[in-house]
Amino acid sequence: MSAVKTAALPNPFALWCGGSLPDAVVAYESWGTLDAARSNAILLFTGLSPTAHAASTPDNRDPGWWEQMIGPGRAIDTDQYFVICINSLGSCFGSTGPASINPATGAAWRLDFPEVAVEDIARSGYEVARSLGIDQLSAVVGPSLGGMVVMAFAACLPGKARRLVSISGSAAASPFAIALRSVQREAVMSDPDWRGGQYVNPLQGPRAGMRIARKLGTITYRSADEWRSRFARSGLGERGLRAAQQASTRVPKGFGPRFAVEGYLEAQAERFVRIFDPNCYLYLSRAMDCFDLSSHGEPSEVLARAGLESALVIGVESDFLFSIDEQAWIAAQLDKAGVNTQFARLPCIEGHDAFLVDLPRFDAAVRGFLNA
Amino acid sequence: MSAVKTAALPNPFALWCGGSLPDAVVAYESWGTLDAARSNAILLFTGLSPTAHAASTPDNRDPGWWEQMIGPGRAIDTDQYFVICINSLGSCFGSTGPASINPATGAAWRLDFPEVAVEDIARSGYEVARSLGIDQLSAVVGPSLGGMVVMAFAACLPGKARRLVSISGSAAASPFAIALRSVQREAVMSDPDWRGGQYVNPLQGPRAGMRIARKLGTITYRSADEWRSRFARSGLGERGLRAAQQASTRVPKGFGPRFAVEGYLEAQAERFVRIFDPNCYLYLSRAMDCFDLSSHGEPSEVLARAGLESALVIGVESDFLFSIDEQAWIAAQLDKAGVNTQFARLPCIEGHDAFLVDLPRFDAAVRGFLNA
Repeated sequence: MSAVKTAALPNPFALWCGGSLPDAVVAYESWGTLDAARSNAILLFTGLSPTAHAASTPDNRDPGWWEQMIGPGRAIDTDQYFVICINSLGSCFGSTGPASINPATGAAWRLDFPEVAVEDIARSGYEVARSLGIDQLSAVVGPSLGGMVVMAFAACLPGKARRLVSISGSAAASPFAIALRSVQREAVMSDPDWRGGQYVNPLQGPRAGMRIARKLGTITYRSADEWRSRFARSGLGERGLRAAQQASTRVPKGFGPRFAVEGYLEAQAERFVRIFDPNCYLYLSRAMDCFDLSSHGEPSEVLARAGLESALVIGVESDFLFSIDEQAWIAAQLDKAGVNTQFARLPCIEGHDAFLVDLPRFDAAVRGFLNA
Repeated sequence: MSAVKTAALPNPFALWCGGSLPDAVVAYESWGTLDAARSNAILLFTGLSPTAHAASTPDNRDPGWWEQMIGPGRAIDTDQYFVICINSLGSCFGSTGPASINPATGAAWRLDFPEVAVEDIARSGYEVARSLGIDQLSAVVGPSLGGMVVMAFAACLPGKARRLVSISGSAAASPFAIALRSVQREAVMSDPDWRGGQYVNPLQGPRAGMRIARKLGTITYRSADEWRSRFARSGLGERGLRAAQQASTRVPKGFGPRFAVEGYLEAQAERFVRIFDPNCYLYLSRAMDCFDLSSHGEPSEVLARAGLESALVIGVESDFLFSIDEQAWIAAQLDKAGVNTQFARLPCIEGHDAFLVDLPRFDAAVRGFLNA
């Protein structure tokens, strides 16, 4: 039932921070049809945690993480475009990462996995396109971490994309975002069940630390205003009470969740802990901290060399993790680079995650750009 | 060398959420001289973690947490006022709390300590004033948690304060703040060294969890803009490298701090873990979540009954934990209650902690109000 395909990377695949990966693969899914000129491909990168399943397929009818944005007649129109979404290198949904088997030892890489950079995610994503006979993308698109990846793509792969869409991304991790991610990683690594990365499998791994990391993530992905209108100071509902009962096995009476917002965090964390490998989380989180477009040169000069025809930068005013000022800065650099740039400043209240929630606004912005 | 005095509370001291405390005391320090009419006293409540040592004294020359605001000729002028600062009930710096000895058992209360409410901090603080022969305060003043406490004071003790100063406080914990604090508490309680609250002493207690809680606190007490200008993406300095060396005993190579902001968090956490009792932290954190002025009645009616002559509400635009909208709302309720209210909307970039850092702005606002 899985629609996931894998593309082999050049072997070995040299990494941005040094070292290389043997026998590495990148998992991807695709929608639509590649045209004869192989010129209508859109490469979509994800945020930190999603799989390549951005939309349902005949083989996997589960809704994807951007279901309403991808399909026939949708903002990313599969009647017009061949869309590829990849699972990031370093992740755990089919692409090679710390949870994969190291062919040299036959055991999982774990912390012996070499450091992964945002640049490696961009370059390995491009290798997927190349494996399909595509030399140049019609567009590269990415939200959140994916927004960083499209910046890295522009820097590392000049001429390989005609258009770029950055959504709530970043050209260089801010000290505020670094601080938050370092605390998330510390929560995972402080959990004795992490065992210095040597847990046997995620379900016997640092679940408590991963819960904390994900709850903190969830807090930073939304906004105080949204939660005020959504939860106010309501007590736990039925769903929350179930979560509280789970939690009560871990904390003494009276110290578990009392408020609806706590039940929501609990449910989010529970889902995440079941699916995401802790070491992969650490690697991708650190990669985000380390990304800095200016390490490639003066940003507008780097972007001028990228050969882009046009760009769309989407930012959300209530996003406090990847601030609207960062988005405006990216748009300004693209503009300075001579790229025909649109900046969509969206007044959504859902914060960083708005691209997953406030679909009408994102549909309009992306549709307008891709079909211009 | 300690200037800390203690006042015995009425025995037993009935608590807001039910139950009572035997033989409870509140620690306090004081500055200036009470006038003959006993009418010049200012009662100062603290944020979550400080001691009653708000300013240096002849007996303890260490600078206090609000050193530059309290003293002869200062914004809170000890030539004019008799100033009392209390350590919150439930804390661990001389006041009765979960780390204190339960007289019934001879052992520390730990989680047998009854639930403490913000209202109890207000009422026990007033008992300190009463023990000094003061019936009515010239002003009650509080930042952060202290700002919640002065709201509770107005609700619980009508006629007992002529003026009120709320600084970056809250009339009801927001779901965003609740979410953050619940994650902080979870970090402490997930640490196996917490041992269900039965750790032997804080230094053998949940240090890893407390580090995470404090780091997250520090992140929410400042602002992204401040950190951008202060740290940018600098690497670890000399101080940070020392912190990293400490951290490296806990995390594998390559996963410890790399950026200046991480070294800063490390230093903040290290300081906090050495001095603050984890169970006391849990109790006070939860008390903040549960505070809601509207549980006393319609807020402006509650405040109208408080008998206040005037009020000053100070808010900081960059504070995302206790947002400027919350401060404006408090000021509006006071105004609606018929209290002569000033609202100082300060453009500091230091976030919630600005009252500890941007002293000139706070000096001007507080001085102008108290000497009007």
